Amino acid sequence: MAKTTKTSRPQRLGVWLFGAYGGLATTLVVGTRAIARGLAEPRGLATELPVANGIPFQDLGGIVFGGHEIRDSDYTSAATEIHARTGSLPPELLRPLRKDLAAASRNVVVGAMPNPGRTIASLADRALRHEKLAVAAERIRADLRAFRTANRLDRVVCVNLTSTEPALRPSPAHRSLAAFERALQKNDERAVRPSAIYAWAAAKEGHPFVHFTPSGSALLPAIQEAFAQSGTPFMGRDGKTGETLVKSALAPMFAHRNLRVLSWQGYNILGDRDGRVLSDSANKKTKVATKDALLPSILGYPLHTHVGIDYVPSLHDLKTAWDFVHFEGFLGFKMALQFTWQGCDAILAAPLVLDLVRFADLAQRRGESGPMPHLACFFKQPFGVAEHDLHVQWQMLVAYLERVRAGQRV
Amino acid sequence: MAKTTKTSRPQRLGVWLFGAYGGLATTLVVGTRAIARGLAEPRGLATELPVANGIPFQDLGGIVFGGHEIRDSDYTSAATEIHARTGSLPPELLRPLRKDLAAASRNVVVGAMPNPGRTIASLADRALRHEKLAVAAERIRADLRAFRTANRLDRVVCVNLTSTEPALRPSPAHRSLAAFERALQKNDERAVRPSAIYAWAAAKEGHPFVHFTPSGSALLPAIQEAFAQSGTPFMGRDGKTGETLVKSALAPMFAHRNLRVLSWQGYNILGDRDGRVLSDSANKKTKVATKDALLPSILGYPLHTHVGIDYVPSLHDLKTAWDFVHFEGFLGFKMALQFTWQGCDAILAAPLVLDLVRFADLAQRRGESGPMPHLACFFKQPFGVAEHDLHVQWQMLVAYLERVRAGQRV
Amino acid sequence: MAKTTKTSRPQRLGVWLFGAYGGLATTLVVGTRAIARGLAEPRGLATELPVANGIPFQDLGGIVFGGHEIRDSDYTSAATEIHARTGSLPPELLRPLRKDLAAASRNVVVGAMPNPGRTIASLADRALRHEKLAVAAERIRADLRAFRTANRLDRVVCVNLTSTEPALRPSPAHRSLAAFERALQKNDERAVRPSAIYAWAAAKEGHPFVHFTPSGSALLPAIQEAFAQSGTPFMGRDGKTGETLVKSALAPMFAHRNLRVLSWQGYNILGDRDGRVLSDSANKKTKVATKDALLPSILGYPLHTHVGIDYVPSLHDLKTAWDFVHFEGFLGFKMALQFTWQGCDAILAAPLVLDLVRFADLAQRRGESGPMPHLACFFKQPFGVAEHDLHVQWQMLVAYLERVRAGQRV
Amino acid sequence: MAKTTKTSRPQRLGVWLFGAYGGLATTLVVGTRAIARGLAEPRGLATELPVANGIPFQDLGGIVFGGHEIRDSDYTSAATEIHARTGSLPPELLRPLRKDLAAASRNVVVGAMPNPGRTIASLADRALRHEKLAVAAERIRADLRAFRTANRLDRVVCVNLTSTEPALRPSPAHRSLAAFERALQKNDERAVRPSAIYAWAAAKEGHPFVHFTPSGSALLPAIQEAFAQSGTPFMGRDGKTGETLVKSALAPMFAHRNLRVLSWQGYNILGDRDGRVLSDSANKKTKVATKDALLPSILGYPLHTHVGIDYVPSLHDLKTAWDFVHFEGFLGFKMALQFTWQGCDAILAAPLVLDLVRFADLAQRRGESGPMPHLACFFKQPFGVAEHDLHVQWQMLVAYLERVRAGQRV
Repeated sequence: MAKTTKTSRPQRLGVWLFGAYGGLATTLVVGTRAIARGLAEPRGLATELPVANGIPFQDLGGIVFGGHEIRDSDYTSAATEIHARTGSLPPELLRPLRKDLAAASRNVVVGAMPNPGRTIASLADRALRHEKLAVAAERIRADLRAFRTANRLDRVVCVNLTSTEPALRPSPAHRSLAAFERALQKNDERAVRPSAIYAWAAAKEGHPFVHFTPSGSALLPAIQEAFAQSGTPFMGRDGKTGETLVKSALAPMFAHRNLRVLSWQGYNILGDRDGRVLSDSANKKTKVATKDALLPSILGYPLHTHVGIDYVPSLHDLKTAWDFVHFEGFLGFKMALQFTWQGCDAILAAPLVLDLVRFADLAQRRGESGPMPHLACFFKQPFGVAEHDLHVQWQMLVAYLERVRAGQRV
Repeated sequence: MAKTTKTSRPQRLGVWLFGAYGGLATTLVVGTRAIARGLAEPRGLATELPVANGIPFQDLGGIVFGGHEIRDSDYTSAATEIHARTGSLPPELLRPLRKDLAAASRNVVVGAMPNPGRTIASLADRALRHEKLAVAAERIRADLRAFRTANRLDRVVCVNLTSTEPALRPSPAHRSLAAFERALQKNDERAVRPSAIYAWAAAKEGHPFVHFTPSGSALLPAIQEAFAQSGTPFMGRDGKTGETLVKSALAPMFAHRNLRVLSWQGYNILGDRDGRVLSDSANKKTKVATKDALLPSILGYPLHTHVGIDYVPSLHDLKTAWDFVHFEGFLGFKMALQFTWQGCDAILAAPLVLDLVRFADLAQRRGESGPMPHLACFFKQPFGVAEHDLHVQWQMLVAYLERVRAGQRV
Repeated sequence: MAKTTKTSRPQRLGVWLFGAYGGLATTLVVGTRAIARGLAEPRGLATELPVANGIPFQDLGGIVFGGHEIRDSDYTSAATEIHARTGSLPPELLRPLRKDLAAASRNVVVGAMPNPGRTIASLADRALRHEKLAVAAERIRADLRAFRTANRLDRVVCVNLTSTEPALRPSPAHRSLAAFERALQKNDERAVRPSAIYAWAAAKEGHPFVHFTPSGSALLPAIQEAFAQSGTPFMGRDGKTGETLVKSALAPMFAHRNLRVLSWQGYNILGDRDGRVLSDSANKKTKVATKDALLPSILGYPLHTHVGIDYVPSLHDLKTAWDFVHFEGFLGFKMALQFTWQGCDAILAAPLVLDLVRFADLAQRRGESGPMPHLACFFKQPFGVAEHDLHVQWQMLVAYLERVRAGQRV
Repeated sequence: MAKTTKTSRPQRLGVWLFGAYGGLATTLVVGTRAIARGLAEPRGLATELPVANGIPFQDLGGIVFGGHEIRDSDYTSAATEIHARTGSLPPELLRPLRKDLAAASRNVVVGAMPNPGRTIASLADRALRHEKLAVAAERIRADLRAFRTANRLDRVVCVNLTSTEPALRPSPAHRSLAAFERALQKNDERAVRPSAIYAWAAAKEGHPFVHFTPSGSALLPAIQEAFAQSGTPFMGRDGKTGETLVKSALAPMFAHRNLRVLSWQGYNILGDRDGRVLSDSANKKTKVATKDALLPSILGYPLHTHVGIDYVPSLHDLKTAWDFVHFEGFLGFKMALQFTWQGCDAILAAPLVLDLVRFADLAQRRGESGPMPHLACFFKQPFGVAEHDLHVQWQMLVAYLERVRAGQRV
C-alpha cells in the first residue's frame, strides 16, 4: 500500500461538497478524517495503490471540507443516522472524530434550489424559493471565496453530490456562457437547475469540478465554456460504483470470446433518499439514461438491455442489484450468467470521490484544463470518452500516471 | 464479423484429437463442419472477430479431423447422445452432416492407456493394458503419420482433450527427453500417463500441440525438450471456459478499485463423464490446482479461496457454478458479489479449441517454436505466463495479431 | 404413481380451450396425447399422485380437444415453433402424434374478439371486429354444441387460456345476468371483453369452466349468476405456476418463525406472446394485481412488496424470476433470502390445466355447482378463498379427496 | 403479537446452557434480557405469535441463565466480540444490560470434556482431561443443584448448545442406563462424549432437556432410559434454522405439484467456531448426516442430494447457503430453482431455543414425559418423528396448542 503522505510541505486543499450532508458526503468526510488520523486503512482508494506510488497527490490530512446543503443537519448526527441504517460509520469511529466533524459542519452553508423538481424540493428543510437566480449565483461564489479565506486554503476542488435531478428541457440559454448568464440575470428559472448554478460557480471561481451524479444540467455547453474560459479541469458524470462497474468489467469478456449477448437485464433495489428520489419517474429517467449506453458501446452491437430501479425502504443504502445476462455461444446455444451485487453505495462511492478530488487537484497543479479523459474509469458516463470497457479505461489511467511520473505534459 | 475464408489457396489441415469421442471433441467436429457448410454462424470464435481481420488463419472448410479414443463410438451416435442430454447438436443440424461425421469417424483409432488412473480406466471399452509403452508410443506416431498420408494433409495440429488424470508422482524420467525415452523402453509405467505419451508423439512428429486439459503429465520438462528439439509450438493448459473465465474478468475490478477480497468461494456442479471423473478425488485435485493460482496472482495478495466441484448427474454437461465474493471497501465495510454461471461446457470450449488450432497452425507456418504466451487468455494455467488478468491477456493477443498483420516476427 | 386409467367404462370428455393455439394450449394438447399414448410419464399432474388413488378421474385417453382461436395455426406447426424456442415438445415426441394433432386442429374454430384491448387485437390474424356481440355470443354457444355432437362427447369442460386482458371499466351490465344479456343485445362493447363472452357461453351451456388467466371479466357477478342458474361448477383465476407458487410455499415459513418480512421484491422476465402482452402496461396491471394480495394475506400484516415484469424476447417461454426477501429476526437483525426461478411457463401450467379439467369434470359428475374452493392451490387468486398458504390450500385439496373417496357430498 | 407476560404469579425458571459462552448462548442471554427489559420486540419467537395466545408460557422476565463452558469468558466480552464480527448485539443494547450479563456470567462454571474429539479439545482454555468420568458426572449434577438453590429457582430446563462432536463408536454401554453408568464408573472414555454426560445429568436431575445440536451421543438409548425413569420430557436434535428450514418449506411444493426433483445440491459457507469445528471432517460428518434424510422423506423417493459445508472465516456467523434444485416437469422438461440464504446463525437459533425452553417447561408442568413430537418443526432431525414437511410439523404444533388451550392431556 502506498504511503498516504505524498507532498513534501503540508498544503491545505479545500473540498467543497454540493450536497454536503447526504450519505455519500457524510461518509466521505468521516472516512477522510478517519484515514488521516490513522483510524482506518485507505481501503477503496486507487490513489493509494502501488500503481500510484510517487505521484504527488494531496495528503489526506490537509483536506478541509465544506459545502452547500438544503437540509438542516451536522456531520455527527448525519453519521449516527447512517450507522443506524446500514451499520457503517460505527460510534467507535465517530467518537475520536467529534471535533473534526464539528469543524467540517461549521463550513456547511445553505444551498441554492432553483427549479429542482418536485421530489428534491420536498427534501429541503427551508424555503429558499424566492432567491433570484442572479442573487443565488453570486451568493454561491461568495460562499466559495469565504470558505477559502476563512480556512487559509491553498486550493479548492468542488464536487457535485446533489440528488439526481429531472432532465432539463433544452433551452437556447444552454448554448453559450453569455446566454446562460443572461438567463441568470433575467431569472429564467426553467433554464436552470441547482447543478447548473453550482458547476457555473466552480468554473467562474476556477475550482476544478467533479460531477459525481447523473444530472444533465451541470455540464451544459454554456458551462463547459465557463471552464474553458477559466482554464479549469472538470470531469463527470455519475460515479461508476456498483452494478454498472461490474457490467463494465464483465461485458468485455463476452466481446473477447465472441459470445453474443442477447439480453442484459439489470434490476436495482435501494432505499434512502437516493432510492426515494429515483422512485420519482422523472428523476429515474435521468439515472437510467447514464446506465444504458455502456453495453452497446462495449459489445459493438445493439442488444436488448434494460435497467430497472425500485425503491425498497428497508435496504437503506445497502443497494442490491440482480443482473441476468442471456447469451449465445457456439452453434447458437443459449446460456446465462446471473450476478447479485450487494454493496453500500456511499461506502463504494466515497473513495472514488476522494480519488477524483486528488486527480482533479493534481491536474490543476499541472496546468491541465477542461475534461480529464484519463478519469473515465470512475464514471458511468465519462465526459467526452466513448470507451466504456473498464479495463481499457484503467489502462488510460495507468498511462496518465506514467506520464505524470515521467514529468510529461498530458 | 470477419469472413470465414481467409487463405487464398485451399489447404488441408489435419486436427488430431486425443480423446476423439468426448463431448467436447464431438461438439468441435460437428460445429466445425456446420460452420464450414454455412449451417451455423461462427459464434464463439475469437479468430472470427473484427480484431482478427486480415490474419491468414486456416479456412474451417479445409480442416480434417481424426483422433485417438478408448471408447467405442462414432460421431453421429456421440452427437445424438449429447443432444438427448443437453439439447445442443440438434438432429436438424446433424442430418446434413451425416457424411462428414462418418468420414471423421473413420479417422478415429484406438488410443493408448498406460497408467491412466482407476476412474479413467473404467471408461474404456476395450482392455489395452498389455501394450508395452514403447509399442504404444510408436503406434501413436504411426497413427499420426497414417492420418496425414491417408487424408493428403498439408499440416497437422494435435489437441489433448482426454479426461483429467490424477497427478503423476515426480520421477527422474520427467527431467530430460533421454530419460523419458529410456523409461518408455524400460516400460516404466509409473512414470507415464496417457497425456505424456500423446504429447511426446506430437512433439516427435513436429505437430503443434494444444494441451486443453489440466493433466500435469503432458508438458513435463522432458516433453518440452522434445518440442524444442523439433522446433514445434505448443501451449496449455486447461481451457479457460466458465467460472474461471468469469473470475479472471472480474477479479481485476476489485484490484483496480482497491477493494480487498476477503474470500472468494467457488462451487461447481456438473455431470457427464467429466463430472464423474472429477468426482474421483485424485483427478479432482489436478483440476482444482489449475483453478487456484489465479486470484492471488491478479489481486496481489494471499486470500481465502476455494474451488469446490461436485458431481450432479442430472446436469450432464450443463455446468453450473456459484461464486461468492466477500470483500471489504472504504472503512473496512464488508460487501458481497455472487454470480451463477450456467453454461454448456463443450459449447464453451469447442470454439476455443478451434481458435487454438488456428493460432498453433499459424505459429508453425510463421516458424515460431515452443510456448505461445500470446494464447494465455485461452488457458486456466497458461504455460510460462504469470499474468491471469483476462484483459491484460487479451491485450497480449491483440498485440500479437498486430505484429502478425505488420509482418513482424514475434 | 397412480394408474392413469381410472374409469371402468371408457368415456369421452371434451376439453374446449379458449385460446386454442397458444403455447400453453399447444403444450397441453401435445402432452395429454403423449401421456395417453404412453410416450411420456404423467409428470406434473397432482391427479396422478398416490393421494389421488381411487378417485374416478377422467381417463386421459378419452379426452378430446377443441377450441376458439384468433390466430391461424395448427397444433403441429405451433408445437414445432415452441420446440425451436424453448426445446420442449421435441420432434421425436411430435412425430407419433401427427394424426392426433391434426384431429385436434380440426376442432379449432375462429374466436370472438369484442373489445380485447390494443395489444391482443394486434395478435389476431383475421379481422373479426364487425361481428355484433349478440351474434358472437350465440356463435360461440353453437360452436360448443357442434363440438360435442361431432365428437360424440359425454361431457365438455371449458378452459380460458386467452391472453391477459386490460381491466374492464365497471359497468351496471356486470351486476346481473339480465343486465349483461341486455348489454349483449344492445351491442355495448365497452362492457364486454372476450373472456366475458366465453365464460358466459360455458355457463349457459352448462359446461364446467376453468378460468386459468388473470383477466377480470370472466367471473363478473353477472356471469357467476349464469353459472348458478345452470348449476355448473367453475373456478379461477390465474394458474399458480412459478414465482407466485414459490412465494406461497415460502411465505408461511416466515410467518411460523415470527420472522418479520420487511420487503419482498419480485422481478419477472419473460418473452413470447405472454411477455409481449404484459409489456403493455394496461395488461400488466391486471397480472400484477393477482400477484400482489398473497403476501399480506399469508403474513398477516402489510409490507413493502412489488412484482415487476419485463419483456425479454430471447427467453421466450423460459420465464425467469428473481425474488429478494428482506426480513428481520431476533433483536431486529436484518437478513435476506433470494431465489431465482427458471421454468418453462407452458410446461408448468399444462399439467395444472389437466388437473383442473379432471377436478371440474369430477365435480360436475358429483352434482356440485358454483365455485370449487378445494382447488385454491392451483390459483394465484382463488375465487372466494382468502387462504393463500400453499400448504393449507393443499390440505383443503386432500380433505376434498378424502370426502370423495368416502362417498360424501361436499 | 401476544403479550409476553403469561403466568399469573411470577415464577423463576432456570435455563442451564451446556456451552454457555458460545455465540448462540450469548445471543440468547442478551436477547432474553433485552426483551424482558422492553429494549427489543420478541421477534423470532413462535411462542409470541397470536397462535400461542392464552398458553401459560413462562414469562421471559423470570428466566435465570447459567451453564457449563470450557472457555474463559463472560457475557459482556462475548457479546462485544460478536458485535465486532456480525454487527448483532450492538453496544447500545448491551449497555443497559451490563448488570444482567454480569449476573448470568456468575452462574457459568467449568464444563466437562471427556473424549470431545480433537477440534473441540483445541478450543478449551483449561486442561480438564484428568477428571475421571464418574467425578465429572457427579460434579455436573452438583452444579445443577447449586444453580437451583443459589438462584431460588422454581424449575430448571437444560439446553445442549455445545459444538458438534464427532460420531461416537457404538458401544454396549449405550444400550441401557445400567451399562452406561457402569461405563462411567469404569471410566470408559471411548463410550462417552461431553453431550452424553450433560444429557445424563439433566435426566437424573429431572430437568427437561433440549438437544439443539447434531451430536449423536446425547440421546443414546441409555439416556432415553434415564429420562423415562425420571419422567422428564426431552427433545432434539439440531435446531432447524437456515438452509434446512427453507428446504423443509420448499420441498413439499415439488411433491404437491408432482415435479420430480432430480438433484438438490446445497452448499453452506460459514466462519466462526462453528465453521471451524465443521471444517474438521469428523465433526462435519455428524452435521451433514442430520441434514440429509429430509428430502427423500418429504419427496417420497430417493434422489441425488448433497450438502456441502466449507469454512469461510470472513463470514463469521453470517452463514450463507446456495441451493440448486434441478427438477423435471411435464413431459420430462428440466427446470431449476436456486436460492441463496444469508442469515446470522445465532440470531436465527436463539429464539428457537427460547421457544423450546418454554415448551419443555410447559410440558413438565403439564406432567408430560419423554420425547415431545409436537416440537418437530424446530429440529433438523426431530426425535421419533419421521415427518419433515415444515407445514405438517407446524400443524402438529398448532394442534398441541389447541389441546393445551382446551385443557386436554396430550
